[in-house]
Amino acid sequence: MGFIHRDFMLGSGAARRLYHEYAKDLPIIDYHCHLSPKMIAENRRFKNITELFLGGDHYKWRAMRSYGVDEKYITGAADDYDKFLKWAETLPHCIGNPLYHWTHLELKRYFDIDDALSPKTADKIWKKANEMLQGDDFTPQSLIVRSGVEILCTTDDPADDLEYHRQIRESGFKVRVLPSFRPDKAVEIGRPEFVEYMRGNGIDSFDGLLSWLRSRIEFFHQNGCRLSDHALNLVPYAEGDPKAAFDKAMSGQIPDLHEQEVYKTAVLRFCAAKYAARGWAMQLHIGALRNNNSRMFDTLGPDAGFDSINDSGIAEPLSRFLDSLEKEDKLPKTILYNLNPKDNYVLAAMIGNFQKAPYKGKLQFGSGWWFNDQRDGMVAQMKALANLGVLGTFVGMLTDSRSFVSYPRHEYFRRILCDLIGGWVERGEYPKDYQTLGEIVRNICYYNAKNYFEF
Amino acid sequence: MGFIHRDFMLGSGAARRLYHEYAKDLPIIDYHCHLSPKMIAENRRFKNITELFLGGDHYKWRAMRSYGVDEKYITGAADDYDKFLKWAETLPHCIGNPLYHWTHLELKRYFDIDDALSPKTADKIWKKANEMLQGDDFTPQSLIVRSGVEILCTTDDPADDLEYHRQIRESGFKVRVLPSFRPDKAVEIGRPEFVEYMRGNGIDSFDGLLSWLRSRIEFFHQNGCRLSDHALNLVPYAEGDPKAAFDKAMSGQIPDLHEQEVYKTAVLRFCAAKYAARGWAMQLHIGALRNNNSRMFDTLGPDAGFDSINDSGIAEPLSRFLDSLEKEDKLPKTILYNLNPKDNYVLAAMIGNFQKAPYKGKLQFGSGWWFNDQRDGMVAQMKALANLGVLGTFVGMLTDSRSFVSYPRHEYFRRILCDLIGGWVERGEYPKDYQTLGEIVRNICYYNAKNYFEF
Amino acid sequence: MGFIHRDFMLGSGAARRLYHEYAKDLPIIDYHCHLSPKMIAENRRFKNITELFLGGDHYKWRAMRSYGVDEKYITGAADDYDKFLKWAETLPHCIGNPLYHWTHLELKRYFDIDDALSPKTADKIWKKANEMLQGDDFTPQSLIVRSGVEILCTTDDPADDLEYHRQIRESGFKVRVLPSFRPDKAVEIGRPEFVEYMRGNGIDSFDGLLSWLRSRIEFFHQNGCRLSDHALNLVPYAEGDPKAAFDKAMSGQIPDLHEQEVYKTAVLRFCAAKYAARGWAMQLHIGALRNNNSRMFDTLGPDAGFDSINDSGIAEPLSRFLDSLEKEDKLPKTILYNLNPKDNYVLAAMIGNFQKAPYKGKLQFGSGWWFNDQRDGMVAQMKALANLGVLGTFVGMLTDSRSFVSYPRHEYFRRILCDLIGGWVERGEYPKDYQTLGEIVRNICYYNAKNYFEF
Repeated sequence: MGFIHRDFMLGSGAARRLYHEYAKDLPIIDYHCHLSPKMIAENRRFKNITELFLGGDHYKWRAMRSYGVDEKYITGAADDYDKFLKWAETLPHCIGNPLYHWTHLELKRYFDIDDALSPKTADKIWKKANEMLQGDDFTPQSLIVRSGVEILCTTDDPADDLEYHRQIRESGFKVRVLPSFRPDKAVEIGRPEFVEYMRGNGIDSFDGLLSWLRSRIEFFHQNGCRLSDHALNLVPYAEGDPKAAFDKAMSGQIPDLHEQEVYKTAVLRFCAAKYAARGWAMQLHIGALRNNNSRMFDTLGPDAGFDSINDSGIAEPLSRFLDSLEKEDKLPKTILYNLNPKDNYVLAAMIGNFQKAPYKGKLQFGSGWWFNDQRDGMVAQMKALANLGVLGTFVGMLTDSRSFVSYPRHEYFRRILCDLIGGWVERGEYPKDYQTLGEIVRNICYYNAKNYFEF
Repeated sequence: MGFIHRDFMLGSGAARRLYHEYAKDLPIIDYHCHLSPKMIAENRRFKNITELFLGGDHYKWRAMRSYGVDEKYITGAADDYDKFLKWAETLPHCIGNPLYHWTHLELKRYFDIDDALSPKTADKIWKKANEMLQGDDFTPQSLIVRSGVEILCTTDDPADDLEYHRQIRESGFKVRVLPSFRPDKAVEIGRPEFVEYMRGNGIDSFDGLLSWLRSRIEFFHQNGCRLSDHALNLVPYAEGDPKAAFDKAMSGQIPDLHEQEVYKTAVLRFCAAKYAARGWAMQLHIGALRNNNSRMFDTLGPDAGFDSINDSGIAEPLSRFLDSLEKEDKLPKTILYNLNPKDNYVLAAMIGNFQKAPYKGKLQFGSGWWFNDQRDGMVAQMKALANLGVLGTFVGMLTDSRSFVSYPRHEYFRRILCDLIGGWVERGEYPKDYQTLGEIVRNICYYNAKNYFEF
Repeated sequence: MGFIHRDFMLGSGAARRLYHEYAKDLPIIDYHCHLSPKMIAENRRFKNITELFLGGDHYKWRAMRSYGVDEKYITGAADDYDKFLKWAETLPHCIGNPLYHWTHLELKRYFDIDDALSPKTADKIWKKANEMLQGDDFTPQSLIVRSGVEILCTTDDPADDLEYHRQIRESGFKVRVLPSFRPDKAVEIGRPEFVEYMRGNGIDSFDGLLSWLRSRIEFFHQNGCRLSDHALNLVPYAEGDPKAAFDKAMSGQIPDLHEQEVYKTAVLRFCAAKYAARGWAMQLHIGALRNNNSRMFDTLGPDAGFDSINDSGIAEPLSRFLDSLEKEDKLPKTILYNLNPKDNYVLAAMIGNFQKAPYKGKLQFGSGWWFNDQRDGMVAQMKALANLGVLGTFVGMLTDSRSFVSYPRHEYFRRILCDLIGGWVERGEYPKDYQTLGEIVRNICYYNAKNYFEF
């Protein structure tokens, strides 16, 4: 029996029954990821397992740096084989890290490899995997189909022409690949690239910006988009005139922090109202502290493994932001994600303030995000939601990933969910009513998302 | 065997022994609740189980809203039977929520109903429970007596004439129903109703306020009050002249935040010194963020299920507030409660700074409050207290409830306490010395509260 | 079988195998403690078990105060026997507190006493222990040797002449006793004693201070120092001219908070660059809120059990501080410790931003500190590190203690580490590959520290 076996992570009979009878075979709705629509459309084979496993995966890069691996084997010029060896050297020491489980799930599910990756097995795995990668089962589209994906939502800039989404749609690819609307560049007025972004999109006034956003939302909607996404270091809430800040920024000055907040509040509220009108869900990702290492940022740019967790207070402005929309009946379906686990209870309680029929869980506390996307983080999120809200309405898992082999994270989530609920049942904390239990599990794994997003 | 059976929540032999031999049969001292003294005095029967279970219970209302139930079935005009059905529909999906356990404990203990509440069983339960509600066992006073309550403390405004408490006392009701002193309306100078409150009580100067508070504390003391209670969004601490803020407020202006803090600090310190002089305990409930949904607040008012958790820093001002009293030997017995679990360790460590003979646990870290009043929250509070202080001095559970059938929460707490301690014993982390273990359990369930409050 | 038996805290077969075969017999590198070099050099016997157990141990003092013990039995004039009895009365109620385990580990390992300490056993233990204390096995040096210590690092002021360290070295004591550099008095410009400290060390300008620090670092280095240590209530980061703040302080004024931050940032950065140049590790202890009880501070001074946990935000300034050093290639090996467990994930993520070859874990998230130095705290720290970083690079345990019998805390840590990892193995979350598991355990218990600190 290999490391990844039938009952991996399933610690009770109830957990095993729930997973195997109810969860395992459901399709996947991956409603938030960072896959490249271009790569899906072009559908080229991967060169080798280093490209597939380590290309762009900043989780693994961070682990390798922590283990003392030289940068040349991470993002540098070293040979792909040597990079893979360095990863194989690092991994056994990542005990207790989700990468350890993810990697072996990926080796098992896509390559049917049972060996644990280590310096001893690296060469054998390298050869076997690379050979298999030459087959037709390993193109981006094949990997998606083999993973049981029904719908996936990429993350796209409002300026994107969604050309690749069109190509994919028209190619007859049987999985629906939908865009999501992520207007961070239009929101982040304090960043140096703001002016250029506005000019590049022909925007020269605040009103012009709003018209442009309105038309882009319409365009995205026509292309099947039903979700937006916003990354917020801090949750902004300030009343005031956003035009002044806009004009100041366009004249080359950086608005002060209060002006930025006024501006962001206005733009977010404008967008939120449009989302509400179209039945979209709005995702707020709260609390990342990005690009901490400026030397590496200058070399590698963003998303290279130098981000971490902020710790400011978020409750009051978030409450006022949501309330200001609800007051005018313009609050869309909303999913709140926190990067700092100290905010789990704040969010789990916050969503309860704005729940409203006819939606089941109109406001959602999103699944463990990024640094929390691991067993302890997912369990903490689900327990907070269960204790403070209604777990049965949870829309469940998403990959949030750049990798074409990250779908086993849905399997991982389902096993952890079934283990959590199964443990409750086993300890007599919920009746052994498998009809209801099965319904709850199936809802969280698939049906809640299906009903909630209305793709 | 029904869902709520003899060994519910007791996961080890040691836990079962501790619960059944030491904890189960102790009386209840419910030193903080929100029961209506009027309802106790009038002692009228409940119309039906909807009134008993769902009337005023904003925990359940929130759950129903989260499950997508329309407001008309929650606080609206729908028929009581339909409301009960909606609750029965919601409950099975509240897996992992304390409401699931509370509801079934209530059905079992008061109605001897073993069925799990669901749409399938709702009609049967509705009929059986409503029939029983017509009997004499279901008046407020009967429910209290049947629950094994020895003393209960309501929560009362300083202006209250305590007439219902007098009536209850003089009626010969064998349970002591004592008032608690909650002067929030005299503290919250920033609220619109402040001026009216002052005028209504004939107060027109800061000194007048202090005299009034002094005489109300005296009056409450004569009526058996031995606890106060304060709800603090933020812990205030600022030196300065409180009179200026008071006069400003009375002249119709809202004092700024600093002035408010100066005022609150002064009033709280004045009250605290009086509590200390009379041997009262002071309760500080820290960190609620209330009335987040202004549309629903306008419709339903406060305490309708639209409150959540704040996340400001509390350590420094709390330390200075307590120190300013201790320096003058005017610090009363104090119980600190936090709504945000991120503050568990802050409070568990803070109380250690001000412990002082002859009290065992003069400063107390209060039991899991509100959103933390569930198994995980209670265990986290007790583990924090155990790790950083002396668990054996803990005054234990309170219901904090508006419901006459919430006493099984004491049973729930006792089971969880015994399960926690029993687990330690079972794993060899404390010796199997049942004499000492039994004493610790009995102290936390009853004797510590009895000795601490000196009712 | 006594309470402390062979398999204490080892809840699985895998845990037992890892502990007994790999962890138990390794030497101890106690890289951070507060032992007195004078007491080690003088090597006098302890008068009795009260002096050994309760002298200077503010953890126990706090517990006794919480249990309602009068101060005269804690720091007062009471007889040592009576003080010991009061401790024996308190301890059984400290269920779930690390003191319960530490005390019994100390009684077992140093005195071979199996009885649980309680009022019933106190007299017998008092007599047996005091008799043994007269033997040669109980001098400070004997206790250190018997504990298996290879190296220990004390905590010393820059002005210290390290005379006792020299004496110990020249005495032929086989354990290396090295100094650590803790320049808090030169950093804390807001404290009243700052000016006196500067004058006492002949410093009258900011440049003078830097020269002095440089020469003291050199002197400490020559005496074997390889670590520094800083206690930071808040993490400072502010750019500006530190000389102005220095001159202001020396002229008798207290610099404002911003000026203090500018000054602290500059001094810390100066020191950090020197540490980096010499290959030292820098320890930052973040988040204590000290001397909360001013009445007791006036009586007993600092470190008497009146400190607790602060809760300010730390992520942004910490990130900028570390980045400002990394940008100039002057970031030393750094160990971050937090007192508030809400910061576990912030630190575990922060270290990942600055990891760099050739070090394994150049940035470290330090073991559970002070109030977190207990099983739950250690497990939370290790799980955070495992989930967000590479646990296999962790430099592990330190005592941080003032007591000569605190070395069993290393045993306690090792048991908890093996129980954590063993639990993962037992539940199938890591393969049963004992060669790798044993290597990981041995690294965390000993080899990582040995390689990291390069003493």
